Amino acid sequence: MSADPHAQLAALGLSLPEVPAPAAAYQPSAAAAGLVATAGQLPVVEGALQRTGRLGAELDTAEGAEQARLAALNLLAVAAAAAGGLERVRVVKVTVFVASTDTFHEQHLVANGASELIGMVLGPAGVHARSAVGVSSLPLGAPVEVEAILEVVPG
Amino acid sequence: MSADPHAQLAALGLSLPEVPAPAAAYQPSAAAAGLVATAGQLPVVEGALQRTGRLGAELDTAEGAEQARLAALNLLAVAAAAAGGLERVRVVKVTVFVASTDTFHEQHLVANGASELIGMVLGPAGVHARSAVGVSSLPLGAPVEVEAILEVVPG
Amino acid sequence: MSADPHAQLAALGLSLPEVPAPAAAYQPSAAAAGLVATAGQLPVVEGALQRTGRLGAELDTAEGAEQARLAALNLLAVAAAAAGGLERVRVVKVTVFVASTDTFHEQHLVANGASELIGMVLGPAGVHARSAVGVSSLPLGAPVEVEAILEVVPG
Repeated sequence: MSADPHAQLAALGLSLPEVPAPAAAYQPSAAAAGLVATAGQLPVVEGALQRTGRLGAELDTAEGAEQARLAALNLLAVAAAAAGGLERVRVVKVTVFVASTDTFHEQHLVANGASELIGMVLGPAGVHARSAVGVSSLPLGAPVEVEAILEVVPG
Repeated sequence: MSADPHAQLAALGLSLPEVPAPAAAYQPSAAAAGLVATAGQLPVVEGALQRTGRLGAELDTAEGAEQARLAALNLLAVAAAAAGGLERVRVVKVTVFVASTDTFHEQHLVANGASELIGMVLGPAGVHARSAVGVSSLPLGAPVEVEAILEVVPG
Repeated sequence: MSADPHAQLAALGLSLPEVPAPAAAYQPSAAAAGLVATAGQLPVVEGALQRTGRLGAELDTAEGAEQARLAALNLLAVAAAAAGGLERVRVVKVTVFVASTDTFHEQHLVANGASELIGMVLGPAGVHARSAVGVSSLPLGAPVEVEAILEVVPG
């Protein structure tokens, strides 16, 4: 794990947001068998989406990557709450769903916005496997949704 | 876990169906490391889909939520078979894939049809993390597909 | 597990490819709590996609199944590397994302290309739960992406 993920966050000019309230009838995370599954996180900032639309139409790859980064920041907040601190979080698997037109094929580059933030903040504890896929649409018109499977490192 | 999930089911006028036969070359569930992964469940009733089509076109949000509820009932049947009884099932993570037009953005409300049934039947053991995404199409034209990661509670 | 998965591969005229390099900022797999999560695998052969496009447009079901088989061969390579040998791999859950038009509904048959290869190579250790969904598009224009959750069998 990173020696001090909060210092890494601060160096990026970031801090953990509040854990976003789930959009519907579920919880932000659930733990079992030493793992934590997170709910899909949208790029909400203070409760509101900054952008809506699809990659290949309303957003380009760089804009999508920034949205993935915002969703990943929410994911880190959920992870920290579930693990009892960011320094106890290890990210195992990330799935990035990217709202995409039929002809947009850079989901992997959009998803890097999430993966790179996680890597910068958590260091070796942020090294993860990942899938990135293009979906037809997402809740509330969000451009991306990011979920993860985590391991909690004993404190 | 719920004291008596079968009583909860009965109070809803429901009972567990037979475990649906997989549509292809796989099994309804597989267990490892204290967890169970289910196959994606479609809203089949006695072997047949009740509705086909996409949200935003052939189905509205309420109709989609009812289909998600049907898929979740099949999921509970799979879970009960895998765990050796519904009272031993704890639901950790649910993913709801919703066949959606590009402009349909209420996947989270459709998915509530699944989450709310699971919560009503299993009580605290049904509290889960969740992702809901809109996909272009699903096997057999199904409007929703619901999968889960479960934990088996010692009997 | 299969007595000799390499013999099964050879009988199919196949051998494990090199582990494909991730398309972006992540790792091919990550282990935690006795499980391994793989990254989504594309049907690349020697670093290049053989086909691009969607099911229901550029590819038919049989062609999609062949692409799923190629992606699953890469998945087996990732699995073998993660587990310390193919004979130590047990496949628990497979998810197959199929780039699909709105009206293509045979994702389950496309996904059989992956499931059947895994079953032939690994025997009982390849029996898995599975989800197959149709997505709007995939990285690099790939027709399919296949990911898995694995268990490592003690050697």
